[in-house]
Order: sequence, then structure tokens, then C-alpha cells
Amino acid sequence: MISVVILGAGNVATHLFKAFDKAENITVIQWYNRNLDSLNQYINSVDITDDLNNLKEADVYILAVSDDAIGNLSSELPFENRLVVHTSGSVGVYDLDKKHKRGVLYPLQTFSKNVKIDFANVPICIETIDKKNYPLLKKLTKSIGSPIKRVNSDQRKVLHLAAVFVNNFTNQLYRIGHEITESEGAEFDLLKPLIVETAKKIIDTSPFMAQTGPAKRNDKKTIKKHLKLLENNQQHKAIYELLTTSIQRTHGTKKL
Amino acid sequence: MISVVILGAGNVATHLFKAFDKAENITVIQWYNRNLDSLNQYINSVDITDDLNNLKEADVYILAVSDDAIGNLSSELPFENRLVVHTSGSVGVYDLDKKHKRGVLYPLQTFSKNVKIDFANVPICIETIDKKNYPLLKKLTKSIGSPIKRVNSDQRKVLHLAAVFVNNFTNQLYRIGHEITESEGAEFDLLKPLIVETAKKIIDTSPFMAQTGPAKRNDKKTIKKHLKLLENNQQHKAIYELLTTSIQRTHGTKKL
Repeated sequence: MISVVILGAGNVATHLFKAFDKAENITVIQWYNRNLDSLNQYINSVDITDDLNNLKEADVYILAVSDDAIGNLSSELPFENRLVVHTSGSVGVYDLDKKHKRGVLYPLQTFSKNVKIDFANVPICIETIDKKNYPLLKKLTKSIGSPIKRVNSDQRKVLHLAAVFVNNFTNQLYRIGHEITESEGAEFDLLKPLIVETAKKIIDTSPFMAQTGPAKRNDKKTIKKHLKLLENNQQHKAIYELLTTSIQRTHGTKKL
Repeated sequence: MISVVILGAGNVATHLFKAFDKAENITVIQWYNRNLDSLNQYINSVDITDDLNNLKEADVYILAVSDDAIGNLSSELPFENRLVVHTSGSVGVYDLDKKHKRGVLYPLQTFSKNVKIDFANVPICIETIDKKNYPLLKKLTKSIGSPIKRVNSDQRKVLHLAAVFVNNFTNQLYRIGHEITESEGAEFDLLKPLIVETAKKIIDTSPFMAQTGPAKRNDKKTIKKHLKLLENNQQHKAIYELLTTSIQRTHGTKKL
């Protein structure tokens, strides 16, 4: 049985609590947050506290707090030589106080407060400074059904950066699609099957092979028509031009 | 029974042929292409021809050819006053020769040669100049199980433009994610569940509500780290900056 203390009360903390709470080989012995309000609804399932001096002894302490809070919180923990991990994609493992055994458990997925998460669809990137601590984190992660990948800090940082491209930026392209269609009273809903299909295609096909459209074909007539439609929104136009150039560089079609 | 002649042999033509061929109330009486090579494999299922003068009389002629070929091909058809439609998102309905009854049947989906298409997931946008011809196109489209939407040319054109954003440009962001992860020997595959989840989220949540991440939070520290990681690729950096600004304008976080 692996004993866990969770620190933090955001989306990642909450989803991890629910997953660990259901897992057979894990017991969440305590949940800490500096403000108890967000934890009160779990008072019957787990011991909750807002006092670091009350923290129980556990096999792993999981700091699922905002990036800026990780370093300080790890220093304020009133013990040493125990395994302390954070869950951030962009914070280094050395940002944790060196009095601890240190590691990272980075779930590579988008979490929403009210959307159930199946951890079988959440790859978890694991890192430990001392390799002796790796098996415990691996066992912990395996218990919730997640695919596990050992990564170093540099790899984790580029994964986090790439996640911004494929998640936040992609979502903004959906938003622009929404704005463009609504400007003519067309229905954004009509694009949803295309959006889902575009994402699913990537499972079996590389993004390079999957590319289609006027930029790749260097179809100047269509590109010109599109730029004309975007005349009243210079920012959308700039995004269209930049991504068209990017596709053409990738596919070597710029000078056709 | 609706009789159909298909003209063209690309992905859209082929997928439409297969769908119509299976549909109960439709008979594809002929398939034309200027080059018979691509049609020879269907010689046992349908009458094929490369001669416009041999075209049979049908209820609908579907011009599933490249955008540039639509106007000329419609003029070369050796008959008039029959229903002729094209399948393009960006070509006007008036680009068809005026000797015909004219319409558009625009399937809003990405088609790949070897990937099966379920037309239940392909919204089809229909337009006719004369509303008398609308019911026939509607019946035809309904027979293959597609959701149907009547749109005008302006709406169809912005749908096509928006499709470039949510399909081609999104796919290029996947490509950039691929390049970024590989640059550090990290696995692009780890991002696939995130890619699929990001797309699926849109089905129930508006892209505005679904947005997360450093740009929306105006998390300057993380943005700075990311820009540093992109220092060696000015184009990826420019895309990062432009889409970050776009998110911040959408969410009013620019001046926090």
C-alpha cells in the first residue's frame, strides 16, 4: 500500500485525488490546502488540513499547486528526506527544496473541473533525481491505469511547450473558426465533425502525411479569396498568412 | 429513384460514389473522368466514360472536380436545363454555366483516399439558385445519411475558410508539436490523447469556455520560458507570439 498526501485543490489535485482514492494499492491519507473551503466537500472521504505542521508521514507528497508556489511550498514542508513531487510541465525538478527526495509526476492532459477523466487516456511523465525513487512513482502511476513515460526535465519542458501548441493554440483556432462562421450567420456546429476527424486522423497518420488544403497545394486563387474575406480582421489575416507560410515551408510548396 | 452522374475521380468523387452506390433510393448511372485509368477498378459496378458526348440523361450531375475546372467543365457539358451541382467550398454557384439548373452540394469534412467515411459524420451544405431544385438535392443527401444544412454562397465561403483554420492550420500545429518534441527526443505519441481530448471538448463546450493555459492566465514566466525554448526557430516563435496575443485579446488578459 502506497500512502499519499496531496497538496493543492485545483483541477489536477482534485482529479488525482479521485483516481488515487479509487485505486486499490493507494491510500490518500491526507489532503492539504491553505484554504479549507475547497476541500470541505471531501471531509468524509479523507483527512483534510490547512496546517503544514499537521502533515502526516507518507510515502509520497504530491504538490499539485500553481507553478509559482511549488518552490516555496516545498521549502515550508516541516520534514526532510521524504519523496516530494510536483505535477508541473514547466517547473524544473531542482526547483523543489533539496532537503527532499525529489521527483515530478506530470500528467499530459487537459483537466476541466466538471469533466470526468479516464486516466487510461492520461500519459504521465515521471522524473526522479535519484533513480531509487523511480519504482515507487511508477507503481503509483500504474495503479491509476495511466500510460507511463520516463522523461528528463528537457523532454518534459518541450512536451509542455508542444502541449500549448496542440491544445491552447488549436483551441484558439477553433475559436477563430467560431468567429468567422458567426460573422455570416453560418453554424459553427457544422465544423465539429471535421474538428474531431482532424484530431483522430493523427492517431494513425503523421501530421505531415495528413496535411491537405490550399496552403499545401499552393492554390493561390483560394488563398487570395480567403485573405479577402479576412480583410476586416488584421489579426486573423496575420494568423492565416503565417500558418500558410509555415505549411508551405514544411511541404516545400512555397516556390511552386 | 434518383439517377446520378458523377464527374471527377478524386477523393470527394470516390467517396460520394461509394455512398450513393450503397444508398437505396439512388442509382449512379454513369461515372465520367477525362482519364479512365482512375475509374477502371469500378468498371463492374458502374458505366464509366471519358467522353462528355456519351453522358446519359440523369436527374443530377455532380461535378466533383478541382475548383479551377468547375466553370469550364460545366460549359462543356453538351446539354442544358438539367440540374448540375459542384462540391466545392469556395467556388460560387454562379460559376457554373447559366445554361444549367445550378446548385452546390458541399461536404464539410476531410476525405482521405483510404479512410472509410461515415456520411452520418459529414454535414452537407446545400445551395440551389432556383428553390424548386432544393428538394431533390435534399432527398439525395438524406439518402446517404448526412446531416443537411441549407446555406447561401457567403455562408459556404466562410465555412470553407473556417475549415482551413480548424483543419489545415490545426494540423500544422500538430506538425509543429511533432517537431518540437522530436527536437529533444521526446515522444509525439504522448500528445495524442491530449489532441483528441481537445477536439472532443468542443462538442459540448464553446472554444471560448474551453480555453486554458499560460496565454489565457497571462502567466508571463511560462510564456518567457517557452519563447526561450523557441529561440532557434523564428517561425515557431512568431506563431507562438501571434496565437498568444490572439488568446489574450479574446480573453481580455493582455493588460493584466
